Amino acid sequence: MSVKLYSYWRSSAAWRVRIALHLKGIEFETIPVHLLKDGGQQHTSEYRKVNPQGMVPTLEHDGQVITQSLAIMEYLDECWPEPPLIFGSALEKARIRQLALAAAADIHPLNNLRVLKYIVKELGADDEAKTTWYHHWLKEGFGPLEGIVDEHGPYCVGRQASLADACLIPQLYNARRFAFDLEPYPRLRRIESACQELEAFQKASAENQPDAE
Amino acid sequence: MSVKLYSYWRSSAAWRVRIALHLKGIEFETIPVHLLKDGGQQHTSEYRKVNPQGMVPTLEHDGQVITQSLAIMEYLDECWPEPPLIFGSALEKARIRQLALAAAADIHPLNNLRVLKYIVKELGADDEAKTTWYHHWLKEGFGPLEGIVDEHGPYCVGRQASLADACLIPQLYNARRFAFDLEPYPRLRRIESACQELEAFQKASAENQPDAE
Repeated sequence: MSVKLYSYWRSSAAWRVRIALHLKGIEFETIPVHLLKDGGQQHTSEYRKVNPQGMVPTLEHDGQVITQSLAIMEYLDECWPEPPLIFGSALEKARIRQLALAAAADIHPLNNLRVLKYIVKELGADDEAKTTWYHHWLKEGFGPLEGIVDEHGPYCVGRQASLADACLIPQLYNARRFAFDLEPYPRLRRIESACQELEAFQKASAENQPDAE
Repeated sequence: MSVKLYSYWRSSAAWRVRIALHLKGIEFETIPVHLLKDGGQQHTSEYRKVNPQGMVPTLEHDGQVITQSLAIMEYLDECWPEPPLIFGSALEKARIRQLALAAAADIHPLNNLRVLKYIVKELGADDEAKTTWYHHWLKEGFGPLEGIVDEHGPYCVGRQASLADACLIPQLYNARRFAFDLEPYPRLRRIESACQELEAFQKASAENQPDAE
């Protein structure tokens, strides 16, 4: 059995999958893809053969290739059911996926590297406008999230880390990195603290990757 | 049993869920939320009580509220398994979700109304820059998709309509609406033709909604 993850230490999408892999105790090899060096190694024709979208992460499981972080995590949950990333009744599962998507599909696609590059290069955004953009989408996303995550926790949905936590944590790291004020989001900060105590989240974090700078 | 869908006729995300509901033959009531009128009815405090993110769609099933189109469709697949939107082996399921996410998480979040508004109002994009933006993300998305959808079809993944088709079709409609040239994407056009022959896709299409203008 061989599991490889094409990853970049600071990529939120790769980070989510690393959390999932470590939560399930799956051993894997990290293949670093540097998103900035050489104009972005994800754009090379060699990597495009692995992932035609030219994005990280990509999972390779016994030679089979899977892309898209959320599809990868659903796949991991099918092949390695314990502990589940998505659990409970149909309604509870929907709640977990809903929270995961609020971070992964409503915040992250707007604040990732390719989009920041575009607004600077094509729309003439200066540093201030770029930061305003970044903070705007965080605020749009974190506001509702703060209202719908579990009131008591400790995690997004009750007493077990899920797909939702795996998506939220890298987003909070990025928020801090871009000097976004997290004071108005006590529940999200509580979830972050709870997750940071888990070994899986520690192992998955950006600074603990082999390609961290 | 009661199923209600908060929807806007032209919303890609609501449209996906309408396709899913019709594919499964689930009867539902449409509750229109006009995304433009009154500064956007999705922003009213009344609607925010239903959907704190202020987005469509929202599904209400026997009084339980579910948001996020992909989470709703996974929920429908759990509660009404036939015909499945996500089917086959773990790998085939991953492939379906991967294609769905390539449209729903990599194209749509960048080209939806709130983002177009932002680039015009805050980044000073004129009509031409807005169209260039729109086409850029379509091209970034459709290029790889054309390469990874099923070569023979007729649908995205083999001989059965799936979650992937439900996500792709509204995106193709939007591409046409914004005068994007679909000539370089024969497979995507083939999938569109195949889907348009199905009653479920016809019933779900924008112009056949009670709130269509």
